[in-house]
Amino acid sequence: MTLTWNRKHLLDLQSLSAWELTLLLDTARKFKRVGERDVKKVSALRGKTVVNLFVEPSTRTRISFELAALRLSADVINFSAEASSLRKGETLRDTVRNLEALNADFLIMRHGASGAPHFLARFARAHVVNAGDGAHEHPTQGLLDVFTIRERKGSVAGLKVTILGDILYSRVARSNIWALQKLGAQVTLCGPPTLVPRVFEQLGCRVVWNVEEAIRDADVVNLLRIQHERQRKTMFPSTGEYASLFGLNQARLRLLKPDALIMHPGPINRGVEIESEIADGNQSVILEQVTNGLAVRMAVLYLISGGDPAVEGDRFGDAVAG
Amino acid sequence: MTLTWNRKHLLDLQSLSAWELTLLLDTARKFKRVGERDVKKVSALRGKTVVNLFVEPSTRTRISFELAALRLSADVINFSAEASSLRKGETLRDTVRNLEALNADFLIMRHGASGAPHFLARFARAHVVNAGDGAHEHPTQGLLDVFTIRERKGSVAGLKVTILGDILYSRVARSNIWALQKLGAQVTLCGPPTLVPRVFEQLGCRVVWNVEEAIRDADVVNLLRIQHERQRKTMFPSTGEYASLFGLNQARLRLLKPDALIMHPGPINRGVEIESEIADGNQSVILEQVTNGLAVRMAVLYLISGGDPAVEGDRFGDAVAG
Amino acid sequence: MTLTWNRKHLLDLQSLSAWELTLLLDTARKFKRVGERDVKKVSALRGKTVVNLFVEPSTRTRISFELAALRLSADVINFSAEASSLRKGETLRDTVRNLEALNADFLIMRHGASGAPHFLARFARAHVVNAGDGAHEHPTQGLLDVFTIRERKGSVAGLKVTILGDILYSRVARSNIWALQKLGAQVTLCGPPTLVPRVFEQLGCRVVWNVEEAIRDADVVNLLRIQHERQRKTMFPSTGEYASLFGLNQARLRLLKPDALIMHPGPINRGVEIESEIADGNQSVILEQVTNGLAVRMAVLYLISGGDPAVEGDRFGDAVAG
Repeated sequence: MTLTWNRKHLLDLQSLSAWELTLLLDTARKFKRVGERDVKKVSALRGKTVVNLFVEPSTRTRISFELAALRLSADVINFSAEASSLRKGETLRDTVRNLEALNADFLIMRHGASGAPHFLARFARAHVVNAGDGAHEHPTQGLLDVFTIRERKGSVAGLKVTILGDILYSRVARSNIWALQKLGAQVTLCGPPTLVPRVFEQLGCRVVWNVEEAIRDADVVNLLRIQHERQRKTMFPSTGEYASLFGLNQARLRLLKPDALIMHPGPINRGVEIESEIADGNQSVILEQVTNGLAVRMAVLYLISGGDPAVEGDRFGDAVAG
Repeated sequence: MTLTWNRKHLLDLQSLSAWELTLLLDTARKFKRVGERDVKKVSALRGKTVVNLFVEPSTRTRISFELAALRLSADVINFSAEASSLRKGETLRDTVRNLEALNADFLIMRHGASGAPHFLARFARAHVVNAGDGAHEHPTQGLLDVFTIRERKGSVAGLKVTILGDILYSRVARSNIWALQKLGAQVTLCGPPTLVPRVFEQLGCRVVWNVEEAIRDADVVNLLRIQHERQRKTMFPSTGEYASLFGLNQARLRLLKPDALIMHPGPINRGVEIESEIADGNQSVILEQVTNGLAVRMAVLYLISGGDPAVEGDRFGDAVAG
Repeated sequence: MTLTWNRKHLLDLQSLSAWELTLLLDTARKFKRVGERDVKKVSALRGKTVVNLFVEPSTRTRISFELAALRLSADVINFSAEASSLRKGETLRDTVRNLEALNADFLIMRHGASGAPHFLARFARAHVVNAGDGAHEHPTQGLLDVFTIRERKGSVAGLKVTILGDILYSRVARSNIWALQKLGAQVTLCGPPTLVPRVFEQLGCRVVWNVEEAIRDADVVNLLRIQHERQRKTMFPSTGEYASLFGLNQARLRLLKPDALIMHPGPINRGVEIESEIADGNQSVILEQVTNGLAVRMAVLYLISGGDPAVEGDRFGDAVAG
């Protein structure tokens, strides 16, 4: 069977099949090698226009997508909600139609409302990539997490992955859950009961409120960021209390398997979700996640634009371009 | 007669001759084809530096110029008034001289004060393009409007064009009036009497305060945006009242010729200047205007930098560049 | 002896030797010629990523570095402290490690704290360039000042250079002092006693509080900007008083040698540090400084990345790239 890719957009991981995920991860592996070269650039998207449409601000993810596009030789326009026509009362649909009228080929969208990229994709001619929508999904983050696990562990199937923290409001958790389960991992969710409701069991996850129990036999522990900004009311007393009840400290580290991976989507709150030394320790793959995010995003842009998945890493496009 | 272009700057449309306008429009037509290609990029301005000097903010126009420059393979620097040395008390002249000392080749300038780009052009070594100055002119907007009319109607001469709205404060109206009249169209202005004073008759326009009369025999209706930000005092009671007295609604649409074009420089206020369905209807060319704006701006940058107007669309520059 | 360059970073001028300074200046001279060409671009840093990490804002210096990088064909990411993860409580070290995980090759850093770039360089894999740190150093400004003096005067050795103004808080003054003395100039410092303490004599400078005495026999007068923002308390009564006591006016100009150069790092406060006509007069080289800054920054990026200093100006990289 020849693998092909037929999706125009990347909106979520929930709707991807296991082999689509695998194709994305395999393609990302090739692009990771491009990032290690002296000239980190291929010509695959030469003459294409990528618009970073960040209605909710994010420096890190925006930069990662911007670099992914530049390294594919695309032109990049950054469009932020502040100081834009969205502020003048223009609808999102009109903003997007205007960008498309400028022949934008890709719309990378972050939005505070769940489903905003799906709404876009219903009428967009351009390729839409979800860069995080509300508490719904953050598919490229889920992909980079799974990529990191797979690269380190060889395979995802059969692994025990514990996601620890603010699950309720986390799009990162949701994208991870979908991807991990499709690839055969067993997912445990842990955190304060207010942030880890039992309803997640219906997605096939194990819900555990005792952190020691949750991490003891894990192959991977993925620590989520405490996102003050996304919590309407305070769901736990204080970050100090969170650290003592759920933070990864030396005592808890000793419970972990010695080869368990420690992950975090960043930016990390040292001393809250994770003790500083553990973040920099040899089980931590936090910075590898960042590197892999770039490779994953290049792969996404490449595949949804119709790039050939069979091409080898040194031949993306007709030539290496400046 | 061989057509040549001798202007170093594009400051306004008032001073352009009919054949200069025509040359610009013909060149824009070639660049429009570039935007429809798979690789939307030519090498004409490779190694040149374009500075977007937006003292008054504008996301849409800035992005259109930025993309125009990138597709000509220029390097682009965005310079906004906020957080700049203009805030530290530097004069505009000094800011510009500093940008020129960095070998900027093009200064795309938006400014709240009428005449600011002309002031610049008196001493600038770089090519100056007016991207909108106060209530004076917005020449590339005028050009893209005329381009759109010409493309749809075949010719501008003899057409009846009605501009509807806030004429008094509108640089878009002024640039349209100059270009349309030079190319032989007959211009009618309509809106609240406070915003459409009789003095515009001295420019050769018809001034009509009754909207039904103004649009009845029009080939084109150009609806201006209600610009709250540029009105010192309120010139009409409310946007609701404006909509009912001057907005393009279904009743008024029925008065229009079936092939009359409906235009708007955007961003549109749905339900104010125009009913939502009409904006999306088959007489509306609002999004085509956006597409054409990019082609027009590429043509402007190309011609003022000395580009050969006789070159064909696939040969702008020595090669298609990344 | 073959000249070679062995430094990975440019953190300050204090630690550079005279011949390292000379090599930088000679290389900048070649890059200045690139800026005068029709295509102002070379391919030396094609496929490299430059991050402008401006924790303290600066439009001018940021644009100069951005253009330097673009003209070397690098990809450039602008990262400002506002709206970034630094605001979310991330440490500077983590921000930098994240940028490095994205395979950033160069970190151009401006920071309000003295020593911040040195801190970075202790752990950074990327090349670090100090774009101004607190009141410590601004090495590329020092280099461009010395470049300008050398180009105009032929040589720096033996020249009398007077730096006038707010010495105490000036990183520009410090970088100038180091570079000028290493290349054999004799430096005089002048300004209000509160801003020019005697302690600078320990650096080998002459400290003079009488402006007429300080400028009378100078070959170069470098006027510093009055930086209200960097002064904790008011160190002098008013800008009016500063202008009358230390500003360069017509009376003081007459005391100057007719071929003395007048310099200023910009942005200038016309009527404060310098009378308007003198800033635009024939002894002023203020705009040349800006032009030379770009050449100096290209040279810095080129050399610290391992570029061959022996290469000629038209052969930086394998070809001229788009």
